[in-house]
Amino acid sequence: MDNTIFVRELKNQTERAENIVMKYLPDPEEKHQHSVIEAMNYSVTVGGKRLRPLLMQETYRMFRGQDEIVEPFMAAIEMIHTYSLIHDDLPCMDNDTLRRGQETTWKKYGEAMAVLAGDGLLNYAYETALKSFDLIEKEGLAFGVSSETMASRFQSCAKALSVLADKAGIWGMVGGQCADVEAEKKNLSLSEEELLFIHEHKTAALIQACFMIGGVLAGAGKRQIERLEKIGYNVGVAFQIRDDMLDVIGNTEELGKNVGSDAKDGKQTYVTLHGLEQSEEDEKRLTEEALELLDGLPGKHEFMEELILSLLGRRN
Amino acid sequence: MDNTIFVRELKNQTERAENIVMKYLPDPEEKHQHSVIEAMNYSVTVGGKRLRPLLMQETYRMFRGQDEIVEPFMAAIEMIHTYSLIHDDLPCMDNDTLRRGQETTWKKYGEAMAVLAGDGLLNYAYETALKSFDLIEKEGLAFGVSSETMASRFQSCAKALSVLADKAGIWGMVGGQCADVEAEKKNLSLSEEELLFIHEHKTAALIQACFMIGGVLAGAGKRQIERLEKIGYNVGVAFQIRDDMLDVIGNTEELGKNVGSDAKDGKQTYVTLHGLEQSEEDEKRLTEEALELLDGLPGKHEFMEELILSLLGRRN
Repeated sequence: MDNTIFVRELKNQTERAENIVMKYLPDPEEKHQHSVIEAMNYSVTVGGKRLRPLLMQETYRMFRGQDEIVEPFMAAIEMIHTYSLIHDDLPCMDNDTLRRGQETTWKKYGEAMAVLAGDGLLNYAYETALKSFDLIEKEGLAFGVSSETMASRFQSCAKALSVLADKAGIWGMVGGQCADVEAEKKNLSLSEEELLFIHEHKTAALIQACFMIGGVLAGAGKRQIERLEKIGYNVGVAFQIRDDMLDVIGNTEELGKNVGSDAKDGKQTYVTLHGLEQSEEDEKRLTEEALELLDGLPGKHEFMEELILSLLGRRN
Repeated sequence: MDNTIFVRELKNQTERAENIVMKYLPDPEEKHQHSVIEAMNYSVTVGGKRLRPLLMQETYRMFRGQDEIVEPFMAAIEMIHTYSLIHDDLPCMDNDTLRRGQETTWKKYGEAMAVLAGDGLLNYAYETALKSFDLIEKEGLAFGVSSETMASRFQSCAKALSVLADKAGIWGMVGGQCADVEAEKKNLSLSEEELLFIHEHKTAALIQACFMIGGVLAGAGKRQIERLEKIGYNVGVAFQIRDDMLDVIGNTEELGKNVGSDAKDGKQTYVTLHGLEQSEEDEKRLTEEALELLDGLPGKHEFMEELILSLLGRRN
């Protein structure tokens, strides 16, 4: 794909994903819940690449998914990603004050409200994803869909929700955060296996969920879903290796967050374990493997290829 | 119902609910997630009355629900209740060290792990409730159920999940906690309307969910669900009024938590607003109204009646 075409397409797709995420945010006009909704929406709207909704949308499209049932899931995954950042920044966790060039949620709204905003977003993610059932029902009523089709659509939706819960929770992201907290507490040197566990779970799990949910909702088969899970693993771990590198070679202005914080905290990263050169090589290798795996999947995937490639060597 | 019979039946039903909650807890043998699972399970197993699962189970039975699809929801509601206590006890929230006669989660496992244990439990609640879809599928395959029945069961399950998410999140419990945090921050005197909002959302919302989910899963009609929601409101608000009273007239040993903490924090409660006598009257009035509403519902509800009555004037 021509780079100009990719850049234009990326802009369009990101805008689309952005609009979908915004559409599903709760209305802050509610009187009594005003502060928690404001804190939730602040954290989501502060920005980011919307990479996760983009990956989900594109996988869905690749497998010829055509209707809007993927949209609530796109919003939900961004809410889960954001809640994890809010709680991760808390004083008792990473104690960060800057994120995407803005004050972190607890710095702006206080710790209690940041805990609640995270809880609120995680819960609202499920509330939002569940709206896909209503969409199926509405479509079923409008087009007189057979009970068999309805049952099978409900089932895909339930399966997608299970993937979301599995990858966001103790077997996925929360599990990775637990291992991360434990590692810091013990202040021990991590083995390669332990660091990979953290990167796979804390970062790659949600990215796997994006690929898998896109596939599940569009009716991909079991082996295709397994392949999507592997692609997500590679893209996610490569993404985290780059993040570890950027904490060393990036600058605060471009990144919108404090650099050198891992080193300051004496935290072990892919870079402290393998050095910059090896990290860069591994990032590249994982990305190439992801593209090879992608090749074996049906549908057009030029945009997906370019999207994955664009993460390689990114500066923020 | 004879009191001896009720006491025996309550013991049986509580044991049954207890076993179901335990059955759905995650296995702490996992190496890397060990600490977070331990902290989650500690908080759930420390005890409590299992009132919420009991209410759900009994409502389900009242509407002639017979199979096990209610069980994952019974476990899920207890997980959500427990996560809210874990986060509520945090230093940045109520800063409590004692709960059910034991150290609170953050006191025992540290703040970072308590945040994660709460997140883990909330997420696991959805992961658990989603297992009801598998139960429906398995039953459908075993008994050759029609697509129409399958579709309608999946739909009830999705509806029950939506009730859970609605009542646990910003429109329910999290919304109540937000108003509570705001009220304390401002240190203003609360109006009766504001206090009722907090009690309704922070406490009654989850209790409403128990009644409603029991009804939804057993196929209760729309107006019956509305009636169940009202019963849950009455039982929940009465329950919280009694909690406010116990903070004044209870003792730490019986309660298993520190008493007088509301007064110490200068917190406004139903008792500071209306006095003990009026509080007791309102608790009684709300309970009686709940029983009247219950009378209009089908099925046998002697046990439910006694269960609701047993909360009146409780000492812990």
